[in-house]
Amino acid sequence: MPKTIESVGEFGLIDILKKYSFHQSNIIKGIGDDTAVLYYNGQRHLLYTADMVCEGVHFTRKMPAYAIGHKAMGCNISDIAAMGGLPTFALVSLGLPKSLPVSYVEDLYKGMYELGKKFNVSVVGGDTVAAKQIVINVALLGEVACEDLVTRKGALPGDWIMTTGALGRAWKTDKHTSFTPRVEESRFLVKHFKPNAMIDVSDGLTADLGHILEESEVGACLYENEIPRNPGATLKDALYDGEDFELLFTMSETKAKTLMEWQAKNKRWFFYSIGRIQKDKGLFLADRKGAMVALKPKGFTHF
Amino acid sequence: MPKTIESVGEFGLIDILKKYSFHQSNIIKGIGDDTAVLYYNGQRHLLYTADMVCEGVHFTRKMPAYAIGHKAMGCNISDIAAMGGLPTFALVSLGLPKSLPVSYVEDLYKGMYELGKKFNVSVVGGDTVAAKQIVINVALLGEVACEDLVTRKGALPGDWIMTTGALGRAWKTDKHTSFTPRVEESRFLVKHFKPNAMIDVSDGLTADLGHILEESEVGACLYENEIPRNPGATLKDALYDGEDFELLFTMSETKAKTLMEWQAKNKRWFFYSIGRIQKDKGLFLADRKGAMVALKPKGFTHF
Repeated sequence: MPKTIESVGEFGLIDILKKYSFHQSNIIKGIGDDTAVLYYNGQRHLLYTADMVCEGVHFTRKMPAYAIGHKAMGCNISDIAAMGGLPTFALVSLGLPKSLPVSYVEDLYKGMYELGKKFNVSVVGGDTVAAKQIVINVALLGEVACEDLVTRKGALPGDWIMTTGALGRAWKTDKHTSFTPRVEESRFLVKHFKPNAMIDVSDGLTADLGHILEESEVGACLYENEIPRNPGATLKDALYDGEDFELLFTMSETKAKTLMEWQAKNKRWFFYSIGRIQKDKGLFLADRKGAMVALKPKGFTHF
Repeated sequence: MPKTIESVGEFGLIDILKKYSFHQSNIIKGIGDDTAVLYYNGQRHLLYTADMVCEGVHFTRKMPAYAIGHKAMGCNISDIAAMGGLPTFALVSLGLPKSLPVSYVEDLYKGMYELGKKFNVSVVGGDTVAAKQIVINVALLGEVACEDLVTRKGALPGDWIMTTGALGRAWKTDKHTSFTPRVEESRFLVKHFKPNAMIDVSDGLTADLGHILEESEVGACLYENEIPRNPGATLKDALYDGEDFELLFTMSETKAKTLMEWQAKNKRWFFYSIGRIQKDKGLFLADRKGAMVALKPKGFTHF
């Protein structure tokens, strides 16, 4: 029996495929962060990312086309935000069954266009091809000033772990198709409180925090009492559900305290402190009784 | 009955979707050429393109995965070549059924990687998601010196119409999955014989020449006797088949004659003169007997 991709899993497959990428001097970050980071000029980097969504897996025709478009564009904008950058230009590739109503495709496009417009993202090209099921791929470029770049690597022991919003059950509500990518929050943070590490919560809190821990070679402890949850979400939902598209970031205690004071005063956006980075590896949860429970980073994977 | 995309056709759909693109000052060319052209710096432009291929429409599992990968990467590199540029960085998005053997995905990737490597293209990211059928989207960046940029617009009456190779039946042979994108030829041309207009033959000779004529607001006459054909290809095949991925370009008679002399002497690459641009609109064929036949630009469309 040949080994299937289901048996090696999504991250196993990515590890295998990483072999087929060769380094060039102007690649600052290749595969393995929210976006690729490319040399642009002495002042700025180019950010470059793509996400694909498929009918029957990520969405069904029962969902409004506008919402699907919003999500396809939004998850890419969120990736750019996770690097501290601003999105710029998108390419939209659509695989479409011939029998699809034109109005459906227009609604899909409107969802992408209207969210894109809010963040100054223009669709400058792409592809439209026949397909048996609807497939949408959005490729997105962005830019970031060199000094504003934040990656998954850089979290330091003692850092506070923070998030921009509540977690859990997003994909059971309309949050996953109507969320606002945290571009404004990201830009505010990199300009005034430069986080040490950042990612967006797309696979789930423990899975995405796991990426920061792995890249930064540190461990973490989350505080059950402090994790903000979406309406109806259990602790488990908040830890393991994906698609919240909130930012998850770490910064020094001094900065974090100043940020919380700023927020208490200005009442703008939401920033929650939900745990601490620690030197010893592993991911733990301090539960309501103060006991430490070991967590396994896991979340949504495709295979 | 709602209007379906089949009823408006591929180009009708693109016209509808163009509404949902807004202009920004740093977009030099948006939707409507082989790639988007974006402001980069005073010396160079960024080129940006994407192509999607779907199982059951563009390929079947009977075809070698390596060949499919080659094609998915190659058609994008060909688009960059058609603008006079050099490809740089790719994002590969894969939609994959869970039951697919890992070896299949590796072969697909090898096909992309090996062709990419030849042209210094690194895969720097992308997406891997579950899908019911295999879908591949490659997004590709490139660069071109501002003075080397060639678009579909610019063909002038009197220009010779030229191509880099034989046409027809590519998709019935292995040419469509093993072609070499004409990057070297393109670079040679823009550096020494700057064409007035250029495109790659992906939809078919008359369809792609039609794009040049439309953008340049001119007409053309093709010479039946001069159109080079792939083995077994009829005139009809050469006029209407797609997927040859040869360059189709126009330049002044003086330049074209010098190019043909250069080639006769150096025996490098292939350049064929196949017709003339004329002021009066329309597309004609001078047949073997010298009679003029009106042609309708048509080729492969998805819907």
